[in-house]
Amino acid sequence: MSLKRIEQHRSFNGELCKYSHYSEVLQCEMTFSLYLPSNEEIKKIPLIWWLSGLTCTDDNFSQKSGFQRLAEKHQVAVIIPDTSPRGENVPDDEAWDLGQGASFYLDATQDPWAKHYKMYTYITDELTALASTLVPHFSGKESIMGHSMGGHGALVIGMKNAARFQAISAFSPILSPSQAPWGIKAFTAYLGEDKASWKEWDASELVKEASVPPVLITQGSQDAFYPKQLEETVFLKHAREKDRVVHYTKKEGYDHSYFFIATFLDEHFAFHMNYLR
Amino acid sequence: MSLKRIEQHRSFNGELCKYSHYSEVLQCEMTFSLYLPSNEEIKKIPLIWWLSGLTCTDDNFSQKSGFQRLAEKHQVAVIIPDTSPRGENVPDDEAWDLGQGASFYLDATQDPWAKHYKMYTYITDELTALASTLVPHFSGKESIMGHSMGGHGALVIGMKNAARFQAISAFSPILSPSQAPWGIKAFTAYLGEDKASWKEWDASELVKEASVPPVLITQGSQDAFYPKQLEETVFLKHAREKDRVVHYTKKEGYDHSYFFIATFLDEHFAFHMNYLR
Repeated sequence: MSLKRIEQHRSFNGELCKYSHYSEVLQCEMTFSLYLPSNEEIKKIPLIWWLSGLTCTDDNFSQKSGFQRLAEKHQVAVIIPDTSPRGENVPDDEAWDLGQGASFYLDATQDPWAKHYKMYTYITDELTALASTLVPHFSGKESIMGHSMGGHGALVIGMKNAARFQAISAFSPILSPSQAPWGIKAFTAYLGEDKASWKEWDASELVKEASVPPVLITQGSQDAFYPKQLEETVFLKHAREKDRVVHYTKKEGYDHSYFFIATFLDEHFAFHMNYLR
Repeated sequence: MSLKRIEQHRSFNGELCKYSHYSEVLQCEMTFSLYLPSNEEIKKIPLIWWLSGLTCTDDNFSQKSGFQRLAEKHQVAVIIPDTSPRGENVPDDEAWDLGQGASFYLDATQDPWAKHYKMYTYITDELTALASTLVPHFSGKESIMGHSMGGHGALVIGMKNAARFQAISAFSPILSPSQAPWGIKAFTAYLGEDKASWKEWDASELVKEASVPPVLITQGSQDAFYPKQLEETVFLKHAREKDRVVHYTKKEGYDHSYFFIATFLDEHFAFHMNYLR
């Protein structure tokens, strides 16, 4: 066990810690952050997963969203993985939307990415096992949320594990990566040219599956990446056809930034808590 | 008028803007940030000044404190200056606690600092005039808060202008800069060896003045810079002798970070609003 606690901050009466560890799945050193609420009444607490967007690390959500106030208010733990494998030995690309910081939370099958870019398995398997040892009085109930590429990740991971995650929410997610420039570039590199293999990583396809958790999506109307990267039409059409519980809301005047996320994060926590209590 | 708006974000129903302008006082290009609440009822609104600490810019408070939620809740504008003059032509030092990012919010008298390092006059004069043009329906009521070096700045500027500022608050402030390593280093460089000239920039001395606004100070018990840089004894002794309204509270387990500030910022806004309404 290589787990090291590298930061520790009291925050809103709970505690935010940052850890580093060697990941067997990703074959590199990784960091993640975990917030534990005070749990003064020593009750069972649920766990929310947060996945960040392109170029981010686990720090962006910790430092810019103000989530700790809401996690303490609702007495829920929050775990924040990094957005990709890291390090000198891990393949990268000069572009900011491919390689390190841009994993798209999938399991890559193509060289040179396949050896390290297994973020899906890392999160759903290795980090899940670690989290269970770090959250005292864990209730066993989990949900997942994310932003942009991390909104895509939350939807994909949540829908592929519908029995495990009670709810999914996303800010400005990439809803149809197979048809958006960011997604096409990443999927071509990580999964190859055969688009049949892309379907299991595309929320617009997964939403047609047998079982899908309830979904809340919030999109800013002044988002510079909307609608080009974040088009909702196909996802909503497929959700409607299958009668899914999907709430999609547009917020007037808001952009793609953490200022937007911070503003509406209370709505997302309230949504998740409906299913986590 | 060289004022340019370089960023604009809707945030908690109000608007956060970042500006750049040429400062005649500082003889360089400067940035600052301003938050305007929604003011949907079109009432007169007050203005709070925030001063950040060593190594910061106006971005730290904007991005890490979550203050926008409270500014919108209380319908108060917030202005955030940078922490020093900036640019290639502005003298600097290799150390992080002197020069750019470390102005100590005073008017320097010593070379090479005297030409540019006039942050006291910049804030109380030039930026004040600019702010009055940027805050619609300004009530004319102002208060000031800050963190660490900016807590020192808030106390000094607030007490030197007691008729203007209705209240002062500080997180982990340098309360006796003339006796703390950071302050001694900066004052020696900016003001010279004669300690008589230091008194007008030392909160522990200014608190003895004829008129002092009400003060709230919050200090974390696990702050790595406490008590060495942030000793409160002399300030509190002088405040008590003069019967000042000074609330000094210690928060168990909290450190020097923005996680600490974010946790207790609601108490500070509530304190200020008592005097700004």
